[in-house]
Amino acid sequence: MNIILLSGGSGQRLWPLSNNIRSKQFIKLFRNNDGNCESMMQRVCRQIYEVDPKANIVIATSKSQVSEIYNQVGDSIAVCVEPVRRNTFPAITLAVSYLEDIAGIDKDEPVIVCPVDPYVDNDYFEAMLRLEQIVRHDGDGIVLMGAEPVHPSDKYGYIIPSDNSELSFVREFKEKPDMKTAAEYISKGALWNCGVLGFKLRYLLEKSHTMIDFDGYDSLVRQYTDMPSISFDYAVLEREKGIRVLRFGGAWKDIGTWNTFVDSMSEQIIGQAVFDDTCKDIHIVNELNIPVICMGLNDMIVVVGNDGILVTDKEQSSKIKPYVERLDSRARYAEKSWGTFVILDVQERAMTVKVSIRAGKKMNYHSHNYRNEIWAVLSGDGESVVDGVHRTISAGDVVLLPAGCKHTVRAITELNIIEVQEGEEITVHDKLRYEQIL
Amino acid sequence: MNIILLSGGSGQRLWPLSNNIRSKQFIKLFRNNDGNCESMMQRVCRQIYEVDPKANIVIATSKSQVSEIYNQVGDSIAVCVEPVRRNTFPAITLAVSYLEDIAGIDKDEPVIVCPVDPYVDNDYFEAMLRLEQIVRHDGDGIVLMGAEPVHPSDKYGYIIPSDNSELSFVREFKEKPDMKTAAEYISKGALWNCGVLGFKLRYLLEKSHTMIDFDGYDSLVRQYTDMPSISFDYAVLEREKGIRVLRFGGAWKDIGTWNTFVDSMSEQIIGQAVFDDTCKDIHIVNELNIPVICMGLNDMIVVVGNDGILVTDKEQSSKIKPYVERLDSRARYAEKSWGTFVILDVQERAMTVKVSIRAGKKMNYHSHNYRNEIWAVLSGDGESVVDGVHRTISAGDVVLLPAGCKHTVRAITELNIIEVQEGEEITVHDKLRYEQIL
Repeated sequence: MNIILLSGGSGQRLWPLSNNIRSKQFIKLFRNNDGNCESMMQRVCRQIYEVDPKANIVIATSKSQVSEIYNQVGDSIAVCVEPVRRNTFPAITLAVSYLEDIAGIDKDEPVIVCPVDPYVDNDYFEAMLRLEQIVRHDGDGIVLMGAEPVHPSDKYGYIIPSDNSELSFVREFKEKPDMKTAAEYISKGALWNCGVLGFKLRYLLEKSHTMIDFDGYDSLVRQYTDMPSISFDYAVLEREKGIRVLRFGGAWKDIGTWNTFVDSMSEQIIGQAVFDDTCKDIHIVNELNIPVICMGLNDMIVVVGNDGILVTDKEQSSKIKPYVERLDSRARYAEKSWGTFVILDVQERAMTVKVSIRAGKKMNYHSHNYRNEIWAVLSGDGESVVDGVHRTISAGDVVLLPAGCKHTVRAITELNIIEVQEGEEITVHDKLRYEQIL
Repeated sequence: MNIILLSGGSGQRLWPLSNNIRSKQFIKLFRNNDGNCESMMQRVCRQIYEVDPKANIVIATSKSQVSEIYNQVGDSIAVCVEPVRRNTFPAITLAVSYLEDIAGIDKDEPVIVCPVDPYVDNDYFEAMLRLEQIVRHDGDGIVLMGAEPVHPSDKYGYIIPSDNSELSFVREFKEKPDMKTAAEYISKGALWNCGVLGFKLRYLLEKSHTMIDFDGYDSLVRQYTDMPSISFDYAVLEREKGIRVLRFGGAWKDIGTWNTFVDSMSEQIIGQAVFDDTCKDIHIVNELNIPVICMGLNDMIVVVGNDGILVTDKEQSSKIKPYVERLDSRARYAEKSWGTFVILDVQERAMTVKVSIRAGKKMNYHSHNYRNEIWAVLSGDGESVVDGVHRTISAGDVVLLPAGCKHTVRAITELNIIEVQEGEEITVHDKLRYEQIL
């Protein structure tokens, strides 16, 4: 199965664990069978490989997520990066073009497009295999997947099929309705729109060529900035005749807010926390290394992360967005391709960061004009380079990095470093990159 | 006025801002007229000086609080330190002996003893001046202060006076009763026991000599470890005849739990926090540098500190103690005589600490056997000494402190330092002290 996973979104609704650089699909709160917590991104990739070990996954995303994707799923999964953020039609076109030109997929092969964040069981991806077979053997055009609703919801789009058979033509699409209208749709046999598309590679390339004048993947990348920001729904679905929908009867959930998120948690508490016996129906997620005590809470969610603390009534939690938008806070935790960093302390002219680099990984060779840095190695073994001078480092070592020096570090075993930044200007923009030296 | 302030107590009920080394009287949450937050310790000392600019204050405390007291009220106030923690009778005897031998107070001078943590207005200390005058002019023995109750309470001890005059004999003491009994006491004219004692210095010394064989302050210090842990109430008040009580009609509150604490806060929020308009009757105290968002909360308290996070129903908050006792957490924030430190990160063999040293202050000259330390100066100017070698330091400088080296630092202007500790054993016990060198 060739599958394009659409990974986008900003992270306001699941603040403080998501933020402007960390979307909800990267939050690790789902316990897998090994007892480890995995993110939606990791969970979906694992599920796809469980259902189809030979799956050919391409993650379509924007620049800001690339490091985090490599961090979470490794670099064996292909990532197709939008040069700038546009909407789903250009993004899907780019990914399809990637499949043809870079991955060398035949034009007659089926392609499935799927959002990266459905909370589902493996039967969902088994249905996708069936969708692929339909596309492969059963003509051209687009086949969608629609989930049978279990209750009226004003959070999803609806597909009205022409009849109740497993595979039927789409009569109409309906945007998110109010609850009453949703109930009416359901009584007429409507399905939830899962955002899953199936088509032959050839189909979409031809469709795109009628709208965009391009000559393969590289040409598309070059002109990407000039592309209109237009959704796949608007560009294709709303104009296309003969779209079919495959009915899916299993569980499907879009987890977009804390109250839906905690419903899917297998535990009541993740992280250090205790609560007294007057607490009822509460969930606590604590990513910090300090304890949480809850007393006398009812139907509430407490979330503690590096970026902040949320204490909310479950129902109310879906209305968080405007409050997060008002915050003027820099993300304090980030996952990079080489590991993670957490900001520990911020002063006017100084910042202290804990950097963890995974075994075998390395930073870019880079320099800063306006700040000095100091690395104090807490644990692990590695190799640093400062202005071309190589040195092995381990716990207790200190590396001085005056402003202007080129530097990088490679972890031999997992390397934990305290980085103290000090200078007249401390911003992410003060960074010059050089050719790799390690 | 000679006044002994009793500063004791552990910090469980106001966790996470109080902890095993930081009692409630040190939490800075009371806004003073200058707009700054002050602690109960600072507030009470300020109030005493406002009422009696020539007051002679001695703070009676244990070793663990000395640094914090100097940090908060400076070193111009006398501190009398129990060599080990005993109960109020030995502690008061030691402080009285200090007043005679070290402060040189005449035996005929009145002495007032007062807990360090009453939440009162200045009229309380004006009543104390009146108490002092009564002791000075009006005979021997003990005079107490009793506050007129404003409601039945099961949190206070009661004094039953013989009549309703301003100064009357004590008929009986009553321990904390249940609410019904408290109401009965009040109907009979009972007063809340404020824990305030007035007596002539001579009186208490003579009383103590009948129970302890000692010869002045130094002798008492030497034998302090062998003293029985016995309360002043048990040793003196319950046996003494002719104790009088001075009636106090003003406001008096003992702030021991979060719900009583927030009642005295002048603001609903201290620190970075926002709440939505569905929140009602909430208080938020946030000492960390990350934002708190509260939504849909009713009658609740959220407290965020370096040691942990408390989310509690107001009523329930008084029952926190057993949950705090169960925590196995090291205090992450402490005030020292020279400034403050906050633990930023803890690993198995490493710890990162932010140290702030106030202008003019210095650490002890000391060394560690089992850990290396690195100082990275974030801001300020100072002077470091490492194995006798002096050096001036400022922002951007790094000082290496290998295990075994003797070191100290003095701040010229306020000095902020990141200290990275790394080694096989990181404990507060690994510290050898040497004679001051700065």
